[in-house]
Amino acid sequence: MTAAINAPSQPATNRLGTIHGVGLGPGDPDLMSLRAHRLVTNARHIAYFRKKGAKGRARALVDGLLHPEAVEFPMDYPLTTETPFGDPAYNTALSTFYAECTAHLASLAEGGEDVVVLCEGDPFFYGSFMHLYTRLDGVTPLQVVPATTGMSAAWTATGQPITWGDDVLSVLMATLPEDDLTRHMLAADALVVMKIGRNIDKLRRALRRAGKYEAAWLVEHASTKEQTVQRLAETQGPAPYFSIVIVHGTGRRP
Amino acid sequence: MTAAINAPSQPATNRLGTIHGVGLGPGDPDLMSLRAHRLVTNARHIAYFRKKGAKGRARALVDGLLHPEAVEFPMDYPLTTETPFGDPAYNTALSTFYAECTAHLASLAEGGEDVVVLCEGDPFFYGSFMHLYTRLDGVTPLQVVPATTGMSAAWTATGQPITWGDDVLSVLMATLPEDDLTRHMLAADALVVMKIGRNIDKLRRALRRAGKYEAAWLVEHASTKEQTVQRLAETQGPAPYFSIVIVHGTGRRP
Ligand SMILES: C[S@@+](CC[C@H](N)C(=O)[O-])C[C@H]1O[C@@H](n2cnc3c(N)ncnc32)[C@H](O)[C@@H]1O
Ligand SMILES: C[S@@+](CC[C@H](N)C(=O)[O-])C[C@H]1O[C@@H](n2cnc3c(N)ncnc32)[C@H](O)[C@@H]1O
Repeated sequence: MTAAINAPSQPATNRLGTIHGVGLGPGDPDLMSLRAHRLVTNARHIAYFRKKGAKGRARALVDGLLHPEAVEFPMDYPLTTETPFGDPAYNTALSTFYAECTAHLASLAEGGEDVVVLCEGDPFFYGSFMHLYTRLDGVTPLQVVPATTGMSAAWTATGQPITWGDDVLSVLMATLPEDDLTRHMLAADALVVMKIGRNIDKLRRALRRAGKYEAAWLVEHASTKEQTVQRLAETQGPAPYFSIVIVHGTGRRP
Repeated sequence: MTAAINAPSQPATNRLGTIHGVGLGPGDPDLMSLRAHRLVTNARHIAYFRKKGAKGRARALVDGLLHPEAVEFPMDYPLTTETPFGDPAYNTALSTFYAECTAHLASLAEGGEDVVVLCEGDPFFYGSFMHLYTRLDGVTPLQVVPATTGMSAAWTATGQPITWGDDVLSVLMATLPEDDLTRHMLAADALVVMKIGRNIDKLRRALRRAGKYEAAWLVEHASTKEQTVQRLAETQGPAPYFSIVIVHGTGRRP
């Protein structure tokens, strides 16, 4: 069945289109929400971030779901996502890039077109869409669809609950300096570490210093066909960008 | 259309049924995943926790979705969920209760029946299902469906992303002692505080001590028709159990 399409092409009117930041969940299309699925299958305009030259993970997640007449707007990152923050050239390149993406989306909305921006996991949780959202706020109508995060899929994959009772959960980016990582690891009961990639050796050191290395799990590509779940201490070498380290809380439980 | 029903009634065989912990998301049925929706609509046996005498939030979320022949197993908490942990009478009553629930679910599974346990938010994130899961582990086949958490719905409701760059997010239960709350609030960039209810005055004091009171948002019943979003400092008096306090991160952004 071909779904009806939203916002059919029409002469420019006063009606502004809406930019939807749609969380697709952690990777398994079956974990998409009913709302996300409906927005994606009915969308006339679809935008998504991707690494230059790659198909794009968010785009791959909706393969086979798009309306045949959907117009795609891939947004190719000018740089790798692992370049450290704070590098001024990186910040300039990225902010130019986001401004260009925003201008295109705003022009579609001004023409009355709705756009679905595909987001991995939950859009407002360390997501790229946030950079468009803040720039479009006040310019066009915006809607955000929350979703299952990568970390939920990761702890589910370990087969153990992440937090109990009044456990404190801290979410850390492996891009942080080793001392900061260690300090936060010592303070929390349960841990989620994201953006691992080439930061993995620093992450291993910090976990050892915090006495949590043996308790840590490495989950790659959670909820997808490529999913792997291993004790971090039993792994070697690099981890992909799409991996998460989990340390479960051990709080009180009746 | 009436969906086909899974695991039709059959003479006891060697096939064990599966207990599914199914995350329903934060409250809006439209945020349920495709998988959760399918499991719920096809289930022959549905179990769910609820406050004694209440309909149950998880059960209300699936109103109108259940198969007409579905058999319901409500699990009525012997006590309020706000009683402090560590009270020995509380722990004894709860562990007896969980053991009784587990025994019933295990007997269904031994008879070859699949059961869907309805879970609010994500099952492995401070969820009640975890207490059944650990008791059933190794006894019957178990499956968990991750879902959108209440906190994702809460920060989405504020219209602002929760975390940027390498922000540290800490998730705190308002049941913690005030000094612990304050210390964790000082250490993190972004905060989510859950299980508020009658702990709200302590929570206000801790946020003030950490210098984050003015930045805090109170979201009640996120993603439901009863949703409210207010600056915490502009509210007075108690908050419902189903509320979340949010402090957004302000990390680096290009
Ligand atoms: C820019 S953040 C985006 C997070 C996303 N918005 C979410 O809600 O999960 C990218 C990081 O998310 C993590 N991640 C997201 N989904 C994942 C998955 N399915 N498996 C493993 N890691 C995942 C990885 O640590 C990755 O470095
Ligand atoms: C026992 S925990 C369960 C959390 C759930 N498993 C989840 O993933 O969100 C209960 C707490 O979740 C929070 N909560 C969950 N969903 C919520 C919603 N839609 N609105 C406000 N608070 C919510 C409240 O702070 C409540 O005290």
